[in-house]
Amino acid sequence: MKMVSLKNEVDHKPVAEDFVILDVLTPACPDDGVLVQTVHLSLDPYIGSVIRGRHFAGQPPVPQKESIPGAIVGQILESNASGFEKGEWVHSMEGSWQEVCAIKSDKIRKINPDTAPIDAYIGVLGMPGLTAWAGITRLARVETGDVVLIDAAAGAVGGTAGQIAKIQGARHVIGIAGGEEKCKLVTDVYGFDGCVDYKAEDWREKLSKALPGGLTVFFENVSVEMAAIALSHANPYARGVLCGMVDSYHSETQSLHPLNAATIIGKRANLQGLVVYDFYPRWDSFIRTAAEWIAKSQLVYENDEVSGLENAPNHFERLMKGENIGKSVVTLS
Amino acid sequence: MKMVSLKNEVDHKPVAEDFVILDVLTPACPDDGVLVQTVHLSLDPYIGSVIRGRHFAGQPPVPQKESIPGAIVGQILESNASGFEKGEWVHSMEGSWQEVCAIKSDKIRKINPDTAPIDAYIGVLGMPGLTAWAGITRLARVETGDVVLIDAAAGAVGGTAGQIAKIQGARHVIGIAGGEEKCKLVTDVYGFDGCVDYKAEDWREKLSKALPGGLTVFFENVSVEMAAIALSHANPYARGVLCGMVDSYHSETQSLHPLNAATIIGKRANLQGLVVYDFYPRWDSFIRTAAEWIAKSQLVYENDEVSGLENAPNHFERLMKGENIGKSVVTLS
Repeated sequence: MKMVSLKNEVDHKPVAEDFVILDVLTPACPDDGVLVQTVHLSLDPYIGSVIRGRHFAGQPPVPQKESIPGAIVGQILESNASGFEKGEWVHSMEGSWQEVCAIKSDKIRKINPDTAPIDAYIGVLGMPGLTAWAGITRLARVETGDVVLIDAAAGAVGGTAGQIAKIQGARHVIGIAGGEEKCKLVTDVYGFDGCVDYKAEDWREKLSKALPGGLTVFFENVSVEMAAIALSHANPYARGVLCGMVDSYHSETQSLHPLNAATIIGKRANLQGLVVYDFYPRWDSFIRTAAEWIAKSQLVYENDEVSGLENAPNHFERLMKGENIGKSVVTLS
Repeated sequence: MKMVSLKNEVDHKPVAEDFVILDVLTPACPDDGVLVQTVHLSLDPYIGSVIRGRHFAGQPPVPQKESIPGAIVGQILESNASGFEKGEWVHSMEGSWQEVCAIKSDKIRKINPDTAPIDAYIGVLGMPGLTAWAGITRLARVETGDVVLIDAAAGAVGGTAGQIAKIQGARHVIGIAGGEEKCKLVTDVYGFDGCVDYKAEDWREKLSKALPGGLTVFFENVSVEMAAIALSHANPYARGVLCGMVDSYHSETQSLHPLNAATIIGKRANLQGLVVYDFYPRWDSFIRTAAEWIAKSQLVYENDEVSGLENAPNHFERLMKGENIGKSVVTLS
């Protein structure tokens, strides 16, 4: 069985060279668990900080020659868990970068291939989608008339967040993304009302023009610096969801954290931290809702897909460099 | 008529020496306005920054030889405004440090001496009380079981906020104040469950002991540094009201603003900026509620009172130094 592992200790933003493909024994089916044939492996930015042991305080780095964690979608090969049968489709946040994963039954959720396409469960119906839904509908409570700013808007979280904001009745949804191609995805595929390319020199001006009356909601995925920029466009009583600080995963210096308290007060802003784990109990109800949106084409998704586990290292480097257009997925044959 | 004015330009935390008592002509009654005989003049920390032109961006300092703004309670001497009669009691945020104030009718609110003692309208029913009420009941929505931390707890805002939190059903209300005498006021008069003296060397340890299970709400009046300390004790989904940054009114350096975005996320904290002006339309309804609490002794207040306008400069210096015990008021004979 193929498994992707770390070749060396990683003290930098991971590149393809840091990984190695190993041929290992297929694991045994655990007590009260299942063996899952991996069909889709999700590559996500947070895995870059997990690898380095930087995702949570006190969390050790992923050891060399061991499997790398990741969300997967697949089919049960063998089951020692009651209620789970061979052939059933499942999703797990506790999968790994290998062809067959051994997972305890409390870490898997069954998914229905008739409800939505299987590959949707990785991104738009997976953790990125749940994160977007929680932030937009539960925390920011976006409703009719809101003007919403979302960065990393071409990403799996941002792209879904903007679409859900529109579904909730937002009057205007503006994205921020890096490069023309991503901006095109954001407006032409995800249906945002506008997208500003932060790699363009005059992007701050363009952002001001895209938000002539300010914003009422922002969804922050990138950095405190970007949160501060969003805050500068906030109308009184704007709500800001602080969801991820992807830029800090690999920065070598402590951010200056320019979240200005006086500005928060002056703007009467509401900032809410979001951790998606809290919403896992609502995952199934989110899927019921979102699958209907997908069926009606109100919610679309784009995958940045590659075939074969051996291509995971290159594909992860592509994600780390921000070159992916859509949700990064490795599909196993 | 006596008026207190600035003797010189003020580029420091104001002291008594910065003021001068002038004898000036009593102003004429304005069109669509009234002349008010000042009975109580409110001294508030924000006036220190108003004097220096630092309260809002672009606001000029108070000019020398002109009157200093302040909230007042008094009786109408003369009226050119329909609906306002001589002898009626009024409150205004647009009074000044003088014996007789000329005020437009849209800047005065009638108050009822039968509803609550007149001096209550300066503090506990005045802007400090409205601020406390808005933060505790409208923004943080304190309810049964909350554990609430309030700094500047001996102050007019903090002391009222803690009492209202208890009225709302908070399980535990802890204050932070400077010095034993203030802490005694906070616990023995305002009825907080505990108060930590931040001037004591081991105060951070004492604070941890006072919040063994963390906090669910904090009300921040002092500084971002204190907000960061409060945040460090926050339970998941704690709500923090950012109300004032009194310490920054006279600091010569920019604060480092250590509001750590990663901490806000990790704690799932909710931070809400509060500006009391937004709640002015609710002032009368607040007074109806709070006057009942006062009548039942659920809500008490302490004034740090001095008699005679000529004593306003010394009394303001006392406030600036944090030596006041209770709401700072100048009562005119």
